[in-house]
Amino acid sequence: MAVYTDVTEPQLAEFLDRYDLGSLSSYKGIAEGVENSNFLLRTTGGTYILTLYEKRVNRGDLPFFVGLMEHLAGRGLSCPLPVHDRDGNALGELSGRPAAIFTFLDGMWTRRPSPEHCRAVGVALARMHESARDFPLTRPNGLAPPDWRPLYESCAGRADEVEPGLSAEIEAELADFEANWPGHLPKGVIHADLFPDNVFFLAGELSGLIDFYFACNDLLAYDLAITLSAWCFEQDGSYNVTKGRALIAGYASVRPLDEAEYENLPMLCRGAAMRFMLTRLYDWLNVPDDSFVTKKDPREYLKKLRFHRGVREASEYGLEKAAVTKGMA
Amino acid sequence: MAVYTDVTEPQLAEFLDRYDLGSLSSYKGIAEGVENSNFLLRTTGGTYILTLYEKRVNRGDLPFFVGLMEHLAGRGLSCPLPVHDRDGNALGELSGRPAAIFTFLDGMWTRRPSPEHCRAVGVALARMHESARDFPLTRPNGLAPPDWRPLYESCAGRADEVEPGLSAEIEAELADFEANWPGHLPKGVIHADLFPDNVFFLAGELSGLIDFYFACNDLLAYDLAITLSAWCFEQDGSYNVTKGRALIAGYASVRPLDEAEYENLPMLCRGAAMRFMLTRLYDWLNVPDDSFVTKKDPREYLKKLRFHRGVREASEYGLEKAAVTKGMA
Repeated sequence: MAVYTDVTEPQLAEFLDRYDLGSLSSYKGIAEGVENSNFLLRTTGGTYILTLYEKRVNRGDLPFFVGLMEHLAGRGLSCPLPVHDRDGNALGELSGRPAAIFTFLDGMWTRRPSPEHCRAVGVALARMHESARDFPLTRPNGLAPPDWRPLYESCAGRADEVEPGLSAEIEAELADFEANWPGHLPKGVIHADLFPDNVFFLAGELSGLIDFYFACNDLLAYDLAITLSAWCFEQDGSYNVTKGRALIAGYASVRPLDEAEYENLPMLCRGAAMRFMLTRLYDWLNVPDDSFVTKKDPREYLKKLRFHRGVREASEYGLEKAAVTKGMA
Repeated sequence: MAVYTDVTEPQLAEFLDRYDLGSLSSYKGIAEGVENSNFLLRTTGGTYILTLYEKRVNRGDLPFFVGLMEHLAGRGLSCPLPVHDRDGNALGELSGRPAAIFTFLDGMWTRRPSPEHCRAVGVALARMHESARDFPLTRPNGLAPPDWRPLYESCAGRADEVEPGLSAEIEAELADFEANWPGHLPKGVIHADLFPDNVFFLAGELSGLIDFYFACNDLLAYDLAITLSAWCFEQDGSYNVTKGRALIAGYASVRPLDEAEYENLPMLCRGAAMRFMLTRLYDWLNVPDDSFVTKKDPREYLKKLRFHRGVREASEYGLEKAAVTKGMA
């Protein structure tokens, strides 16, 4: 469910009056997205997405998110482009919420990623990293390693309700991250949430990236680790090395990793798995069952965390160092 | 939430291959509708609605529903038109569900009906009744007066949980309906669910009717009673006689009531209120709180039922008999 705030026609018509988009033809709430309310908007001028930002999104972050999409679209990366009103504003207010209109992106997210999809995603992620190099705004990652312990502690020792022994396992991991996290690796703007439902394909080609609402400044290779963990595991929890190789090779074909990034991949992947396990654990324990939010099982990411912990060398993800660090995959 | 069944792109592309609609550009689940899963579908040929019929809908009824929409559209009534595949079929199968594609209808449903909206809805309802006169299929009303007692009894005496004394009140009403329901009034195909979210307006004009999945053969004036009860009460439960007058006058301007229909309006309105109170009561008591279905409060319709019980003469709805039965409102 992704309509938390409803909009009346007179409100929306008044909002639209400030844009050069023609008059309102229809709007329908979209059952996608988790954080915000999204509407498919049709005007006499075309088809758009209307987003109302809900309370979980910090208003102060909106110029970063919207500015980033505009910056990336300007660099040729396919993503929703914020539409400006006649005064030049990309952000307005509707139904008591910050609101923005975006161009509509054709394409569908894939429910069953193939190695070809994974390669294309790797390419797109690296292009995003490269395109954002000169983006002037910054936003710290609110879910970076220093945030994991407080997040874990807010679950108040209840992790063992999900699986006996989980608390001790998390504690050990956190201690390791605190001692050994490779915070010196190259940084930049990362997507931080490039799951399959945020990547569109059309006729077999990647047609665009959406949902930049976790984007922030952090380690570039950590974004690769998040994406790898989201795309390259099968439903039964097993790692698909063909998909992993394709994704990393795609990434490195645009932006070769440096040696330290490559060697730290297992640690970065463990961190990525920890970050998603912890937010899922928190929701699992704290979101009421009758909420509209579909709770995701933290054990999926626990399984991935354990896989990554068993990885001794980055080459086990599918590619030798020479292939990746030279960008010759 | 209105996506119960998800669809993968390969499944949908294969389904679309049977149509002359071009190739798939995008599809997004729509957060509207209660019974079925609806997607906004874009192809290189245009924009459509894809509906997957969920289990609550009887497959045997689908030819009636889809055929009715086609019949009404053919008579010039604006409603979604079923799209045929190359073999002439309007119904297919997708993701294990019966599925159909419909033309997209511009317009928005109104969250705040005005008397002008009500008049337009009355006109459209009567046009629908007239246009369906020669529709050859029939479907009995599954929620007609004889169904109310079994529905009430399936609530197993728990009505008093909603309000003390409600069981006795319902019993008395049911006995009255069983003795005095005017089953001899003119019959035809009725919409049976013409609530504000099923009527679209565009630039102040009614642009179409949707959601014919309760349509059936029953008393035409009962449909007017359902619509009156859905459109002409304020949020505080009070009847708005200006809206009621407009709605009835709009209806009668196309299809004048006969005298018996007019005189039975209070009884028909009580019945309409009972029907919606009972289905809401059933859901209120039986649908788990963590379901995706938003439960509606049965007391809203209890309040309307009591209002209609207090109406002594049909003229209290806003129009004298002469104005309505001559169609000169």
